[in-house]
Amino acid sequence: MLKVTGLEGVVAGETEISLVDGEKGHLVYRGHWAKDLAVHHTFEEVAYLLLYGTMPTGEELLRFKKALTGKRELPEHAKAVLDALPNDMEMMSVLRTVVSAMGTSSYGWEPTIEQAMTVTAVIPTIITYRYHQLNNREPVKPNLEYDHVANYLYMLTGKEPSEAHIKALSAYMILTMEHGMNASTFSGRVVLSTQSDLISAVTGAIGAMKGPLHGGAPSEVIALLDAINTKENAEPWIRKELEAGRRLMGFGHRVYKTYDPRSVALKTVAQELSGKDPWLDLALYVEETAIRLLDEYKPGRKLYSNVEFYAAAVLRAVEMPSELYTPTFTASRIIGWTAHILEQSKNNRIFRPKAAYVGKIPNK
Amino acid sequence: MLKVTGLEGVVAGETEISLVDGEKGHLVYRGHWAKDLAVHHTFEEVAYLLLYGTMPTGEELLRFKKALTGKRELPEHAKAVLDALPNDMEMMSVLRTVVSAMGTSSYGWEPTIEQAMTVTAVIPTIITYRYHQLNNREPVKPNLEYDHVANYLYMLTGKEPSEAHIKALSAYMILTMEHGMNASTFSGRVVLSTQSDLISAVTGAIGAMKGPLHGGAPSEVIALLDAINTKENAEPWIRKELEAGRRLMGFGHRVYKTYDPRSVALKTVAQELSGKDPWLDLALYVEETAIRLLDEYKPGRKLYSNVEFYAAAVLRAVEMPSELYTPTFTASRIIGWTAHILEQSKNNRIFRPKAAYVGKIPNK
Repeated sequence: MLKVTGLEGVVAGETEISLVDGEKGHLVYRGHWAKDLAVHHTFEEVAYLLLYGTMPTGEELLRFKKALTGKRELPEHAKAVLDALPNDMEMMSVLRTVVSAMGTSSYGWEPTIEQAMTVTAVIPTIITYRYHQLNNREPVKPNLEYDHVANYLYMLTGKEPSEAHIKALSAYMILTMEHGMNASTFSGRVVLSTQSDLISAVTGAIGAMKGPLHGGAPSEVIALLDAINTKENAEPWIRKELEAGRRLMGFGHRVYKTYDPRSVALKTVAQELSGKDPWLDLALYVEETAIRLLDEYKPGRKLYSNVEFYAAAVLRAVEMPSELYTPTFTASRIIGWTAHILEQSKNNRIFRPKAAYVGKIPNK
Repeated sequence: MLKVTGLEGVVAGETEISLVDGEKGHLVYRGHWAKDLAVHHTFEEVAYLLLYGTMPTGEELLRFKKALTGKRELPEHAKAVLDALPNDMEMMSVLRTVVSAMGTSSYGWEPTIEQAMTVTAVIPTIITYRYHQLNNREPVKPNLEYDHVANYLYMLTGKEPSEAHIKALSAYMILTMEHGMNASTFSGRVVLSTQSDLISAVTGAIGAMKGPLHGGAPSEVIALLDAINTKENAEPWIRKELEAGRRLMGFGHRVYKTYDPRSVALKTVAQELSGKDPWLDLALYVEETAIRLLDEYKPGRKLYSNVEFYAAAVLRAVEMPSELYTPTFTASRIIGWTAHILEQSKNNRIFRPKAAYVGKIPNK
């Protein structure tokens, strides 16, 4: 078998964008705790922070929001591309193709924040346009009165979103914006490193996020919440699973060996919204029950809820269709990707590792 | 400044596909000298070797060629996407988008050789379709009588290609099929490593190849050949450049410290075709003159012609328009990319290096 390492433990470069410390349960965005940002700030504020490196002043934020809102409409040719794509194409492949189609000659070296904003602004439009199209409905046009996350919910449902749903989805999107040198972000940096363009790099990143090993799509936890369905059912259901030796989805994480800070933050938001949404209330109850029972069945293992647990609760609460989980993750991670793409461009060096040839050497 | 390394010198994994040894001037494809393959074998034979790992038998080759020929037509929806793309989009962005649009649900985990063949077969069709479209001409339909390279030339010009041109372009395409863990191939492997699909991985690789640092597009050497134009003009022109302290394009390479084996092979082909094409004849004369004068002006530097020198001669000889150099390189490197993608899939591990956070840590 060929030896592969996945570059585990190899430092691929320095970054000022985020710190992921799984041992300590730390997630820092540009000097700020991500969990505080998710509870106290908006999508636009945190996007600004990640892209520009500092929190915006009131005036900077207004300008940023206005510019982002103005970029939501898809160019006509991108709509034509969307219309041409066959129905049997996964949403992530659709996103990859339509984002690629945005790459006219205005996207060259070097990448700019404005380009990052354009792609960020159109992703919810692409997702919801396609979603309605597949369901034989008219796409919902962007509503300029709404902020980014509220407008996404509005375009999904055509209805005014509740404050609780906006708050919950914002927190989820902020907490999934950025997570260090994961496979999709790394793809984006590698692609950009040839002095390619932002669209090429994002297209690569979308392709990487499409793979199931990338993670972040909490479909299995939703299945758990759906199966439990009521508070009364929580304890017996979880006991049955643990006694059958099955894994409890939404608990434990490869990186975080303690509380996942993203889970902590989403839990805080769910607690703040207590009584306002039945699914968030159910999730709080299920988590408490599960941790108590995990401690009983697997003492000393210290299994905590991971980001997918509360992510599932949020996505279930806002009635996000399951085929849109990974695309919604894309709609938030685009901020991290483009922040890394911009950082790469400032101090670029082409990524060109070596491969060890273990095949035959010809004679002479 | 943030520290970046581009993973230089880091071994990202093992491979059986190729050996690139710049010190020795070696390029090996699956146990065979690339320079011999380019002189004595066809595009299809070497593609088969790289994808399957062994040289095809006569029967295997026939079957492979027949299958490849049968995949040249673009699906209707991909044509519609091509038609929708605005004119101010670079050919590499067009390729990235149309290849992405090929990614219907039939492209899932794991990638297959058949998928690799489909993408290989359609790339010349996409390039020439777009090329004629931009020039307000009807695209030339694939001709099933021709082999892969001959058909590419035919679709470009609408005319029967000469044996010399087929031979020269085949040698160029064979020699640029594969070159270890370069940035585009590495992008493809990183994207695939999440258990994403072949189309996502190739889309990432095309995006990486688009960047000028990737190299391989010999435009500057063509300018040199065009400027020299006649044998008589070679020595005075080169003397003038060297006396002005300017770099002679097409000589010297980052990896190869001795003769570039690709250059050696293309030179052999040019010599074999002596008298059959004026540009190949000119290139032979210019190289000889340049090496003699480089030795006179920079004794001890040992500057040899690189692959771009004879690549330029070949592309100039076959009258390839300059905007199609990198796309033509893509049309050959697709074999290396997909061979690596398939190899990655057989023994996959997700690429997830670390980034060193050098930003601020918040209090508490």
